[in-house]
Amino acid sequence: MQLGMIGLGRMGGNIVRRLLRNGHTAVVFDRNAQAVEALVKEGAVGATSLEDLVSKLEPPRAAWVMLPAGAITEETVQALGGLMQADDCIIDGGNSFFGDDVRRGGELKARGIHYVDVGTSGGVWGLERGYCMMIGGDRSAVDRLDPIFATLAPGLGDVPRTPGREGRDARAEQGYIHAGPTGAGHYVKMVHNGIEYGLMQAYAEGFDILRHANSENLPEERRFDLNLGDIAEVWRRGSVVSSWLLDLTAQALAGDDSLEGFSGFVEDSGEGRWTINAAIEQAVPATVLSAALYRRFRSREDASYADKLLSAMRKGFGGHQEPKKS
Amino acid sequence: MQLGMIGLGRMGGNIVRRLLRNGHTAVVFDRNAQAVEALVKEGAVGATSLEDLVSKLEPPRAAWVMLPAGAITEETVQALGGLMQADDCIIDGGNSFFGDDVRRGGELKARGIHYVDVGTSGGVWGLERGYCMMIGGDRSAVDRLDPIFATLAPGLGDVPRTPGREGRDARAEQGYIHAGPTGAGHYVKMVHNGIEYGLMQAYAEGFDILRHANSENLPEERRFDLNLGDIAEVWRRGSVVSSWLLDLTAQALAGDDSLEGFSGFVEDSGEGRWTINAAIEQAVPATVLSAALYRRFRSREDASYADKLLSAMRKGFGGHQEPKKS
Amino acid sequence: MQLGMIGLGRMGGNIVRRLLRNGHTAVVFDRNAQAVEALVKEGAVGATSLEDLVSKLEPPRAAWVMLPAGAITEETVQALGGLMQADDCIIDGGNSFFGDDVRRGGELKARGIHYVDVGTSGGVWGLERGYCMMIGGDRSAVDRLDPIFATLAPGLGDVPRTPGREGRDARAEQGYIHAGPTGAGHYVKMVHNGIEYGLMQAYAEGFDILRHANSENLPEERRFDLNLGDIAEVWRRGSVVSSWLLDLTAQALAGDDSLEGFSGFVEDSGEGRWTINAAIEQAVPATVLSAALYRRFRSREDASYADKLLSAMRKGFGGHQEPKKS
Amino acid sequence: MQLGMIGLGRMGGNIVRRLLRNGHTAVVFDRNAQAVEALVKEGAVGATSLEDLVSKLEPPRAAWVMLPAGAITEETVQALGGLMQADDCIIDGGNSFFGDDVRRGGELKARGIHYVDVGTSGGVWGLERGYCMMIGGDRSAVDRLDPIFATLAPGLGDVPRTPGREGRDARAEQGYIHAGPTGAGHYVKMVHNGIEYGLMQAYAEGFDILRHANSENLPEERRFDLNLGDIAEVWRRGSVVSSWLLDLTAQALAGDDSLEGFSGFVEDSGEGRWTINAAIEQAVPATVLSAALYRRFRSREDASYADKLLSAMRKGFGGHQEPKKS
Repeated sequence: MQLGMIGLGRMGGNIVRRLLRNGHTAVVFDRNAQAVEALVKEGAVGATSLEDLVSKLEPPRAAWVMLPAGAITEETVQALGGLMQADDCIIDGGNSFFGDDVRRGGELKARGIHYVDVGTSGGVWGLERGYCMMIGGDRSAVDRLDPIFATLAPGLGDVPRTPGREGRDARAEQGYIHAGPTGAGHYVKMVHNGIEYGLMQAYAEGFDILRHANSENLPEERRFDLNLGDIAEVWRRGSVVSSWLLDLTAQALAGDDSLEGFSGFVEDSGEGRWTINAAIEQAVPATVLSAALYRRFRSREDASYADKLLSAMRKGFGGHQEPKKS
Repeated sequence: MQLGMIGLGRMGGNIVRRLLRNGHTAVVFDRNAQAVEALVKEGAVGATSLEDLVSKLEPPRAAWVMLPAGAITEETVQALGGLMQADDCIIDGGNSFFGDDVRRGGELKARGIHYVDVGTSGGVWGLERGYCMMIGGDRSAVDRLDPIFATLAPGLGDVPRTPGREGRDARAEQGYIHAGPTGAGHYVKMVHNGIEYGLMQAYAEGFDILRHANSENLPEERRFDLNLGDIAEVWRRGSVVSSWLLDLTAQALAGDDSLEGFSGFVEDSGEGRWTINAAIEQAVPATVLSAALYRRFRSREDASYADKLLSAMRKGFGGHQEPKKS
Repeated sequence: MQLGMIGLGRMGGNIVRRLLRNGHTAVVFDRNAQAVEALVKEGAVGATSLEDLVSKLEPPRAAWVMLPAGAITEETVQALGGLMQADDCIIDGGNSFFGDDVRRGGELKARGIHYVDVGTSGGVWGLERGYCMMIGGDRSAVDRLDPIFATLAPGLGDVPRTPGREGRDARAEQGYIHAGPTGAGHYVKMVHNGIEYGLMQAYAEGFDILRHANSENLPEERRFDLNLGDIAEVWRRGSVVSSWLLDLTAQALAGDDSLEGFSGFVEDSGEGRWTINAAIEQAVPATVLSAALYRRFRSREDASYADKLLSAMRKGFGGHQEPKKS
Repeated sequence: MQLGMIGLGRMGGNIVRRLLRNGHTAVVFDRNAQAVEALVKEGAVGATSLEDLVSKLEPPRAAWVMLPAGAITEETVQALGGLMQADDCIIDGGNSFFGDDVRRGGELKARGIHYVDVGTSGGVWGLERGYCMMIGGDRSAVDRLDPIFATLAPGLGDVPRTPGREGRDARAEQGYIHAGPTGAGHYVKMVHNGIEYGLMQAYAEGFDILRHANSENLPEERRFDLNLGDIAEVWRRGSVVSSWLLDLTAQALAGDDSLEGFSGFVEDSGEGRWTINAAIEQAVPATVLSAALYRRFRSREDASYADKLLSAMRKGFGGHQEPKKS
């Protein structure tokens, strides 16, 4: 099946590669002409503009936008909408806010154009492992794109099948789902990332405790000099906490477990924040997911204003003079 | 190799089974004679008392205590200590507090008896999957018991090997480690369980948000009626949040995803609490792990005194009258 | 000075009373004619509709809307906007979202009408203690209304003056501030309420711990049967935690400290939620304020779906069967 | 009444001063002879050693230890215990762990010596405002010391009396209570400090949000350049969040509200930690109090190991490269 791809970064480029390797065809565009060229060498048809890309797609067209969420995705979807015709389909595979999907989908629907939002997990490993996809949009469009999704998805692989799923939607165990109407795909992906933050923080705190198990502040008989790499490794088999994130942790700790190459500054993308906003709108107590997000915020501050105010109060009531930071 | 086992519950019984099936011999004791009988039928030697068990073990003896942490483990270790001789070895495979290990280990060492603490993860799946073991104790004792540990551990299985571990302790990728001196095994297991609570709570909150995505309080265009079982399933392949706990979640949600069979009351065992105590002693901010523990505490209260006091204050300053709980 | 008041509930009615008692005049309207009548008896001029109210105000008019935030405030402000003229002023004294103020203020400004948002704290005590007001809007409108604000504010009272404030805006120590342009008043009030939730939860948790100090689960030598009413009282003088909320707590606990009249269900109004949304937008870690909000969410659930999922996982990996809730 | 005082720091010295100014007599000792000399000038009797102090007290003696909690208090109490006689009384007015009180009290009781633990709040303001005292010990000893406590306490002052307290222990509204048996005083003080951390953090987060209200990351129409000093001041009168900590905040922000003199490093003393340990032992969810404590822990780290591990995982699954910290 033919797919247009706009945005040939880490994700978009590899999605095209996985499609080409499995018999699909692709028309590709990126502001960076070298990125286009590279994929043309691997069998894609290159385009020099959105117009060119649209003109090279056969109706009913399918164009996948794989760009950073926000202004650039918005502009691109709007421009594509102006170039495409009734029954064509625009796919947003980035990390857009689901509310933006709902709005865009409504606008495009008025003109007969389908809009499909695809929450895509898989990162740099997707080319090899496949992409886990959470898809929103109307059934007809999602069904028409099924050959694309089936190819991109990981498939059953060697993951044991879940007992009790007989008779349920078979796509889920292939690694993709039609989650619901427009916006539902990014909604599920949003919560996926919210959970991801929580899981990561749980491991991070656990290993932080293990690392401090030898602290000089502890009574001597309770100090342990632990091998963090071996601990991460041992938990990978047979323990309750085994996971892919733990596999990555074990890799990171396999060599030098001091992690000195990292500054401690941790970014967050929008999904973790939107997850909390959604929880608050629903009045669901998202205690752990919020705590995880806040630790990232805090990681980026050298000295928090909040902390300084604590010291100001402590000085006020107790005359306490805080030591300088080392 | 010969092992004595005291405590033939879910864990102890299956540990003996796994040993018997792999060429080891076992002398077993439990207060419940039927549990002893059952294992005798599978090839174990039965004992009628601790004294009997010790007398049936060949020096240097190895006796594994697999009982609930606390008073009964304490008594049993003390009693065994009185019955055993220099160079014998007592193994505590339960969920003891590492501080108790340190104390017991010191007392027994004075009399030449080895004490080995084994944090054991694997639950009801251990017989089949093997047990992940985190071991504390002196090297000679741990090395002597290696045939036991090697048999109980999961082994490499089909879990991909971690790149960069060449030349490191090979036991870790077999599923067991010698974590350090007495207490280190249960210390690592304690933190394992602390992490487990955090991971579980992250999933629980995420699915709670997904379940409320269709709430009537939300604007209509933002409501999604999601299939939680399919979502859990799809994340098992190719996503960042895949894990064994997610596998179990997918199983639980494969049928009726309302979870109506559960009351919402969630127990905690000691390890989550000790993990927080350890973090506080080290001044490590265990935000997510604490939040997870507190949610369990809260799950067991119908109406919290803290909440009532909030209402009392609200009435005081604003004349607010709270509605009754439904 | 003359003020129109729309909404004669607990807050609006007492605001009018405080103005009338101090030489101002008021034209009042409420859907409930009895509420109007009551204030007419105390000296106000009654109005039978918004039109009537506007017609009875002398230009440049000032009309204060004191209604629940949301749809009804929105409609009323819109209707007033249609009835009023250039240089008139609409005051929203409710708990509106500051973003709504920004929008409304912009719309009204286009027609020359001033819009002033007043975050008003004081609850049922305001008539006696005065109202703490955080005001947003353009300077000319805020200055023109100063006689109203000066009367409603608590004034210096017997609260000691803050050293070092010489030469700073004197209104602050009278109990009202012009916080900034439209929206700034409700923004500051929003954060005020966010802090309020955090403070309340801190006391609530502390007293919860004190109440459980006699729990049967504790070792006997560490149990204390504490008098919570006396503890709240003693902290009111000379301690670091003295506050008005503590005064209210002491009152609530002065009699029966079991608080059995409260169900444990705790409402939240919008401000606590908006505070978290604002913090997230700023990437400020609002750990305590979020935790306080979530405890209110949780207080309203009998059995959380999240908790049930924890039990489902526990059953999955360990065969654990949770007890029923008592 | 005569009191011995050991430890003439900020607290101990002023306690003696307040006693001397109100007709009591004091025998004082400190390792620092100058501290002793200073108080001798103000009317105290100086002592050169614990032995000297004990010899100068008339039986039944009362000696107040006002030293840092931990080893030095322990040694001093032990030494005093060796020097004193049946019916004498040792008072620990520091911030000791209540479990230490229980132990010491038991040991001394065996020899007929009373042990009274006094949780003392008031900081540098106590000389002027009086000390809020939470007292544990047997009734006879506490009653005998009443003249001391009555003098040190703040008294009714101009704090309004709590309605409904008629017939209840009058000491509470004077600012001191007999909380219960040995340990109860420090237990209540411990929770007081736990609450204090929570309150402080609530204000700190609120002002952090206010300070970031003008952040460049926000949409321009939602930015506010707020005057934090004026906001703190306005809340002192008529608002729900007025408190002594807010008074101190208003003082700190009255001048330069940038708080640039503070590094952001915030100490914690033991009580906040013990409060969490107590909550965990009781299974009480201390969400806000824990969050507050953890923020202090985090304030003292430049780059957390936990954060580095998050970055390592992010690099692992997404190839993300974090920016350097500014």
